[in-house]
Amino acid sequence: MRLPHRTVQTPVFMPVGTLGTVKAVPQDVLETLGAEIILGNTYHLYLRPGHEAVRRMGGLHKFISWPRAMLTDSGGFQVFSLSQLRKVSDEGVRFRSHLDGSSHFFTPEHSMDVQIALGADIAMAFDECTEYPADRNRAEESLRLTMAWARRSLDHFRAHRDEVVWRDNLGVPQVPGTWGPGNESPTQSLFGIVQGGTYRDLRRESAERLVEMDFDGYAIGGLAVGEGQAAMFAVLDYTAPALPAGRPRYLMGVGTPDDLLGAVARGVDMFDCVMPTRAGRTARAYTSRGVFNIRNARFAADPRPLDPGCACPLCTRHARAYLHHLFRCEEMLGPMLLTWHNIQYYQDFMRGLRDAILQGRLAAHGAAVRARWAEGDDPP
Amino acid sequence: MRLPHRTVQTPVFMPVGTLGTVKAVPQDVLETLGAEIILGNTYHLYLRPGHEAVRRMGGLHKFISWPRAMLTDSGGFQVFSLSQLRKVSDEGVRFRSHLDGSSHFFTPEHSMDVQIALGADIAMAFDECTEYPADRNRAEESLRLTMAWARRSLDHFRAHRDEVVWRDNLGVPQVPGTWGPGNESPTQSLFGIVQGGTYRDLRRESAERLVEMDFDGYAIGGLAVGEGQAAMFAVLDYTAPALPAGRPRYLMGVGTPDDLLGAVARGVDMFDCVMPTRAGRTARAYTSRGVFNIRNARFAADPRPLDPGCACPLCTRHARAYLHHLFRCEEMLGPMLLTWHNIQYYQDFMRGLRDAILQGRLAAHGAAVRARWAEGDDPP
Repeated sequence: MRLPHRTVQTPVFMPVGTLGTVKAVPQDVLETLGAEIILGNTYHLYLRPGHEAVRRMGGLHKFISWPRAMLTDSGGFQVFSLSQLRKVSDEGVRFRSHLDGSSHFFTPEHSMDVQIALGADIAMAFDECTEYPADRNRAEESLRLTMAWARRSLDHFRAHRDEVVWRDNLGVPQVPGTWGPGNESPTQSLFGIVQGGTYRDLRRESAERLVEMDFDGYAIGGLAVGEGQAAMFAVLDYTAPALPAGRPRYLMGVGTPDDLLGAVARGVDMFDCVMPTRAGRTARAYTSRGVFNIRNARFAADPRPLDPGCACPLCTRHARAYLHHLFRCEEMLGPMLLTWHNIQYYQDFMRGLRDAILQGRLAAHGAAVRARWAEGDDPP
Repeated sequence: MRLPHRTVQTPVFMPVGTLGTVKAVPQDVLETLGAEIILGNTYHLYLRPGHEAVRRMGGLHKFISWPRAMLTDSGGFQVFSLSQLRKVSDEGVRFRSHLDGSSHFFTPEHSMDVQIALGADIAMAFDECTEYPADRNRAEESLRLTMAWARRSLDHFRAHRDEVVWRDNLGVPQVPGTWGPGNESPTQSLFGIVQGGTYRDLRRESAERLVEMDFDGYAIGGLAVGEGQAAMFAVLDYTAPALPAGRPRYLMGVGTPDDLLGAVARGVDMFDCVMPTRAGRTARAYTSRGVFNIRNARFAADPRPLDPGCACPLCTRHARAYLHHLFRCEEMLGPMLLTWHNIQYYQDFMRGLRDAILQGRLAAHGAAVRARWAEGDDPP
């Protein structure tokens, strides 16, 4: 993906930087760990520090000092999952802030204005994330709203995308040929979001209508909300082929490494999830030998690196025993180092998938990776 | 100071690594920030992970992967300030753990055994830290105990100092000539602790008796416990000259940059304090223009680096507005970056004092530094 701030290799995993920081990871470490694109949450950044404040400070890239690519979500998911007293109409959503109860109104147009002020490389259409389970009527109604909002998002975005604060002001591309097809002067992209619950015809209809609108990329939303991996893969099986191969396909809010493996095999190019960062703060380690909880007493005197092949600052310097000690004592360094490791693992994992795709051996690679997970950790 | 793991330039400030981690600072960052020696707390490490566990893992340097110098305190201060149900006798102190109420008995001999197992470059004699205020009788009685314990600490330490796990196993010195006078094979050093409250004759007596015992260095304890800076400086005025110029003088638990300036002028070589790290977690920034609370609303849109001349990862990459945002949102990155800055400030500050001493202009330098603090921050 040639984006204004970075050419990003796909398939790619985007660490989540909710409030303009990937929790516990300094930006220079994030670069070293290999992150090329991170996600910011529009709902959170709209509330604090506010999109106008971010714009005045030069946009989100400059505000947080992140020179590589960024994506902002539309705010829709958090409005529906975090805020209080929501009232949805065709026009938009009125809601109260989860922080102070203050009242706010989000429309597709307002979400675009906020995202243009934030200025990520990729913005997302404002959608209603259908809850799970949703019956047929509810899924149809939600889809109707999401399609109308997609149209309004796109129209408003097209009229205003050139207002992003860094437009025509990016300097030279970091990498020759970085900026879009034909290397034109860069601006933001907008992705549409496919909804439709677990109904095949609704997913197909949603995809077709969005493709007609001609978005820069397409997300698959409303998954990883409790339906289980098999149901999620089933939706991907019929939804991904309905999206054009030449545009990025983004599976929102997913997932475990195993989820990513299955989704990449089904043609997905982009992912985001709080899993590696949240797990890092709660002592869960993602490794080539599966997932460990480092608080487990068996690590108390284990002198080995967490994941011997890993190049992260934790694995190259410290023993499992030390990480165990840090978590046992609730020392901040534990969550910090384990978050760094988990991000490194996810980035290395995606690099492994990309290499395997180029070599035409994704299936064999996936089987080998799954076999190592299943083997588990060596005894100490 | 030529120590087994590092030749340390004095005067020096030691960041506090209570449980084998300087809170929120990875070891590689600590090296970059310029820390040459850090402190570990014997009481805390004795409880978690336990000194025998640390010894089995190769000593504290290896356990936490810190190749530079370390000092452990004796455990006395925490036994007296943190633990419950203390019972002091001539033999030692029985106390209950602040973690689980378990019962423990510390003697001077046991403190030495624990510190030899931990294996820092410098160990401290086991003392009773006299509380403030203490009347004459109480100060005399406390001093009597501390002197008897100093003798027992030294005798036990001399008999066992060669049992430290890295003895004869350090490899080659990092810096030629690093190890002690004559470059002999290295082992630990032991410092005695001067007590005596704010009583001049008791401080002198304490110093003289310790010097007679011939410790490797001398600490001044029982200060910065509520007596105020003027009283502290008065004690230093008559205590420091009673300690030999050729051995390190260490003022324990001190302090603000202004405290350090006054104490260095009075001949102190070493300091430790939680101030830069604790302040970093509570939004207090130490800078060349004085102390700021970064939560203050005036920083919300301030695009400047926290301290423009500072080379730390915060000041070279981020604006005050971003740091303010991180603290406002209670994001971990705020305490992390500000702790790193504060340690950089303390290290740079001590380097400034060392340079001024070498140039024979400590008084002028101190006056200039104080004048900049007093000037305060420029308006945004």
